[in-house]
Amino acid sequence: MKKQLGSKPLLFPMPAVMVGTYCEDGNPDAMTAAWCAICCEKPVCAGVAVRKNRMTFANILQTKAFTLNVPSTSQTAEVDYVGIVSGNKEPEKLSMAKLDTSRSERVNAPIIDACPVNVECRLVDQMELGSHTWFAGEIMEVHVDEKYVLENGKLDVRGLDPLIYITSQSQYFSLGDPVADAYSIGKKIKKG
Amino acid sequence: MKKQLGSKPLLFPMPAVMVGTYCEDGNPDAMTAAWCAICCEKPVCAGVAVRKNRMTFANILQTKAFTLNVPSTSQTAEVDYVGIVSGNKEPEKLSMAKLDTSRSERVNAPIIDACPVNVECRLVDQMELGSHTWFAGEIMEVHVDEKYVLENGKLDVRGLDPLIYITSQSQYFSLGDPVADAYSIGKKIKKG
Repeated sequence: MKKQLGSKPLLFPMPAVMVGTYCEDGNPDAMTAAWCAICCEKPVCAGVAVRKNRMTFANILQTKAFTLNVPSTSQTAEVDYVGIVSGNKEPEKLSMAKLDTSRSERVNAPIIDACPVNVECRLVDQMELGSHTWFAGEIMEVHVDEKYVLENGKLDVRGLDPLIYITSQSQYFSLGDPVADAYSIGKKIKKG
Repeated sequence: MKKQLGSKPLLFPMPAVMVGTYCEDGNPDAMTAAWCAICCEKPVCAGVAVRKNRMTFANILQTKAFTLNVPSTSQTAEVDYVGIVSGNKEPEKLSMAKLDTSRSERVNAPIIDACPVNVECRLVDQMELGSHTWFAGEIMEVHVDEKYVLENGKLDVRGLDPLIYITSQSQYFSLGDPVADAYSIGKKIKKG
């Protein structure tokens, strides 16, 4: 039997990422977002939901760029801090969290050095939905800590240990065990 | 040191869900999607990226509705099968995977009974990005298997054991251990 829980954001698990942008004065800023996704394959695009009162919102509109920085579980405190504190109230939030940034290669947004994966996005479209705007950006470059890049071109995702967020629980999780290979395990289901 | 891997969809982990729709003839169909997210809080909306040649694409435009069905790891073979096989070529794919459906409460799309979480969405907007369209739907109702609904209103997410997909690896994973509570662990970072 199922319970009906009404209109709730119960879609999970989601990645916890930090969205990097530059403020008008050139200061780097970041906010934590769990509501993000790849949203197109050609061109490769990623999207992220941003509330209108966030400094990130104004920054993306100004610079037409953002980065998505995938943290490891070892950075959970920093990720949470960057989500709690507003860049409007605390312009130095990144340095307080001891998160250094570098300039992106291809877009006008900072990448967070400590994160093992940094995704550079150029704003291509936006969708107004209410409290949040869905910003879609073309992925122009991805940086991955070389110690997690395997010889076959895949990533050592377990070693990278990405952080997961589950909105309904307000709780962070780690990635668990591999379950199966895609485009493979489903083949055992055949016409009966 | 970081390696630059170019324009790739390296954002993870993402949930693996099945998108449920009705075909023009009333037959239920589903496709597997890892590229989905919550994209607004008020109203609560979820989005999903769908390739234009998918039957799901035509169905969403026709019915203005879809469901996002969150599977458990025990359903990995079915999820993979529904991702491999096109509804255009195999109209009976859901019955072949032994996935029964029921009508939604609020929208014109089927929910997949075996999935512990079903999210009913009413199409509110769409964004054309290239190979994929980002469909955003207002979440009208969420059904959760009652054995995973705790007395405090939260969910037993570990028991529910949701499936995770990592695009770059073409691999499914399980959810790992809880790491920390949000809006809490970050508070230890304070003005130095």
